[in-house]
Amino acid sequence: MLYTKENWGPVPSGWTRRRLLGLQELSSEELTILLDLADRFRKNVLDNPENARKISLLNGKAIVNLFFENSTRTRVSFGLAGRRLGADVIEFSAATSSLSKGETLVDTAQNILAMGVDAVVVRHGCPGAPRLLAQNLENCAVVNAGDGAHEHPTQGLLDVLTMRQRLGSLEGKTVAIVGDIAHSRVARSNVFALQKLGAKPIVCGPSTLVSPHWAELGVEYAYSLDEILPRVDVFNLLRIQLERQVVRPFPSLAEYAHLYAMNAERLARCKKDVLVLAPGPINRGVEITPEVADGPHSAILDQVTNGVAVRMAALWATLTAVAERRF
Amino acid sequence: MLYTKENWGPVPSGWTRRRLLGLQELSSEELTILLDLADRFRKNVLDNPENARKISLLNGKAIVNLFFENSTRTRVSFGLAGRRLGADVIEFSAATSSLSKGETLVDTAQNILAMGVDAVVVRHGCPGAPRLLAQNLENCAVVNAGDGAHEHPTQGLLDVLTMRQRLGSLEGKTVAIVGDIAHSRVARSNVFALQKLGAKPIVCGPSTLVSPHWAELGVEYAYSLDEILPRVDVFNLLRIQLERQVVRPFPSLAEYAHLYAMNAERLARCKKDVLVLAPGPINRGVEITPEVADGPHSAILDQVTNGVAVRMAALWATLTAVAERRF
Amino acid sequence: MLYTKENWGPVPSGWTRRRLLGLQELSSEELTILLDLADRFRKNVLDNPENARKISLLNGKAIVNLFFENSTRTRVSFGLAGRRLGADVIEFSAATSSLSKGETLVDTAQNILAMGVDAVVVRHGCPGAPRLLAQNLENCAVVNAGDGAHEHPTQGLLDVLTMRQRLGSLEGKTVAIVGDIAHSRVARSNVFALQKLGAKPIVCGPSTLVSPHWAELGVEYAYSLDEILPRVDVFNLLRIQLERQVVRPFPSLAEYAHLYAMNAERLARCKKDVLVLAPGPINRGVEITPEVADGPHSAILDQVTNGVAVRMAALWATLTAVAERRF
Repeated sequence: MLYTKENWGPVPSGWTRRRLLGLQELSSEELTILLDLADRFRKNVLDNPENARKISLLNGKAIVNLFFENSTRTRVSFGLAGRRLGADVIEFSAATSSLSKGETLVDTAQNILAMGVDAVVVRHGCPGAPRLLAQNLENCAVVNAGDGAHEHPTQGLLDVLTMRQRLGSLEGKTVAIVGDIAHSRVARSNVFALQKLGAKPIVCGPSTLVSPHWAELGVEYAYSLDEILPRVDVFNLLRIQLERQVVRPFPSLAEYAHLYAMNAERLARCKKDVLVLAPGPINRGVEITPEVADGPHSAILDQVTNGVAVRMAALWATLTAVAERRF
Repeated sequence: MLYTKENWGPVPSGWTRRRLLGLQELSSEELTILLDLADRFRKNVLDNPENARKISLLNGKAIVNLFFENSTRTRVSFGLAGRRLGADVIEFSAATSSLSKGETLVDTAQNILAMGVDAVVVRHGCPGAPRLLAQNLENCAVVNAGDGAHEHPTQGLLDVLTMRQRLGSLEGKTVAIVGDIAHSRVARSNVFALQKLGAKPIVCGPSTLVSPHWAELGVEYAYSLDEILPRVDVFNLLRIQLERQVVRPFPSLAEYAHLYAMNAERLARCKKDVLVLAPGPINRGVEITPEVADGPHSAILDQVTNGVAVRMAALWATLTAVAERRF
Repeated sequence: MLYTKENWGPVPSGWTRRRLLGLQELSSEELTILLDLADRFRKNVLDNPENARKISLLNGKAIVNLFFENSTRTRVSFGLAGRRLGADVIEFSAATSSLSKGETLVDTAQNILAMGVDAVVVRHGCPGAPRLLAQNLENCAVVNAGDGAHEHPTQGLLDVLTMRQRLGSLEGKTVAIVGDIAHSRVARSNVFALQKLGAKPIVCGPSTLVSPHWAELGVEYAYSLDEILPRVDVFNLLRIQLERQVVRPFPSLAEYAHLYAMNAERLARCKKDVLVLAPGPINRGVEITPEVADGPHSAILDQVTNGVAVRMAALWATLTAVAERRF
């Protein structure tokens, strides 16, 4: 079946937000709407040869990719998602921006909006920057593509979407997020989504990277990966982001890999149908070994495809909510 | 009403130029044609929900953004204008260009043209570079997006368009251009447009930035902002472009702001319906204070929207003139 | 006549490759298919006003420009070729890539593919990098846009296409490739194509840049340009690529120009209808003088236009071969 703007149907009435700033503030109903939408985009547009991966839901809309931190993967994924929906996508990188001429972030954003932009996808090193933008941009959709160590909601969504597709439901499942928890907006967005969907998150890593304060969010924490192996349904293996760390939190990458790398030996001690995710870019031999990354338990590349579907869902939902308020 | 290529009508017969290099060489009739076109694009395409901000006048055309100086605002504005007209826009920044391999500017341009490009939008640090390109590019539209301290015609157009929309007519109006006049192509393009439309321009700033030679262009000059406040209809507050200055022309930014910042106190001594423009990016607290920038007299964000409309007009008019000569 | 997807016809059955990695591995039949296709795109799409330079053969397809070396010309040419065919083209430059975060080239490519990309155009400093990618990318077209000193197949194709258009047939023609032969993937791709089409290639340059090992490929080599002038039908003048050379292979650019520049005096000693090509960007006064570059024997700008046509042929042929295998 060929899907078009005419037969695709409306955004579910439970979604009214014009911005997606984080998963913490979403209800589980809202979370489920986005995941269901992403599932539909994946199945009926991206994987459907008749649709040639396109559906013109956002024809005539202009989306700006406003990235103040380098990111190929996320930027290209949002860019593809927008184009798959028929929108124009304009790139705006920090290196060439007016910010270096002394303009404030809010002025930059208001200028972009005044040019007739319908949505801003923003990545910024400063937590809260997307919210600051959203507060100053009436009549514009805003999607957070990662803000400091705060949230990376579309990454959280694509992670739980991949889990849900493989496991059916996340209710009662145990999901371990392993690695550089201290510096990770991905860990936070995962935890919020998992809790809302009834899963039990564990954060795991060296004590220098895993704070006991996670308990205050209702999250179990563990310093030994080996001890939790047998009772975990999904491992989400975060990158060691050396570029974010001021003091090196462990003696060497080899030491980290010795204690925390998911390898064939550790995999053998996991549940039979354990699922292994990694948001990438992966450091082969550090947080994951090639035989696991390329093996049958890995859903790494599936996550990437789901990333486009999730971003299509986020852009369509927020842009439609804006349009309904505007006209 | 939905506007399409079929019912939009032709470019007015008074416009035959294939390039827009500056406002000095335009007749007042030509200037008015561009302003009227921009007004139509603003009202009937950008602000008209039925058109979803698009009209396919330039389908199949390819426009190259050839920027040898960094510029987000102008580059994105031209990019949006081209896409709103249905053209493909290709970015070509100096950092990755063959110029660093020793190619001449004219060879670069002829190569671009040979690839089948229909229009080149060029920004260059060297005054006259767009004219050099235009002389060597037959069958190609050329639009100057700023060349050294020479002209920035689309900025001049969007400034006077904004004034005309607010004031009705510029005939007999007094317009003060304040700030870094010495290094400003924006000041020059403004002066040329204002004189052609019957307005009286004043350039105002410290004596290190305002030359008495402006009198030779028939322009009044003033060193004291406070003295001219009561008799000015429009203030156009230019950025202090510290990045262009070899010797610092005033003791400090604080000193500049003390004498030339448009603030609430000065605004109170202006005409009741005074209009305040600023081409941006603005330095809040230097040439303008936040209460003025965000207040009712400010048309700063309106200028930005008009920028897209003006660039649509410039691209459509020059590309159509090229097409008529070619076939 | 207006050409559309419906009346354009299929890719000739002799073409089944999903990747274009080099010209050495192509049969002369395959080579001729690409040249004939490029001729059709040139004549019926690029030069045909009715088609407005566009034909929607690749609507809904996404092409990634994956450039690990700077290149304006080739990147823009591929970008235009893709857009002329109706595809979306996404830019992915090395500077902002995840490779700097420690990801392998194959992981980067698999991630791009997982996002739903249909073709990857890759330029890389390392010979063989496109082949490595192709081996790891099922269901994706791969086109080499230049890999180290190995091959630059679309440049070779556009060179011989330009010769064929001007000379009718290359059978028995003598083609001298002059200049920086040692560091040139362009020389290699030219030689392979010329031999398959029945022409006789000569490589010519200083002994520090022209190895006697070319004889093993069946190629004549010469150190004196003056001696071969009278018997050559086509000169292809390569750039002196100083940026690739560790040790300077000749005393000065003036010395090189003295011995190898194609100038009016040397042109007078050539065949009457000699053809002069240069892949550019040209160094005026080094490998070619302005009176030759801009004179009637030069086909330099024609090469650039053919470049877009050749890349349309390469993208359409490889993408169609992929699509036929996939569905």
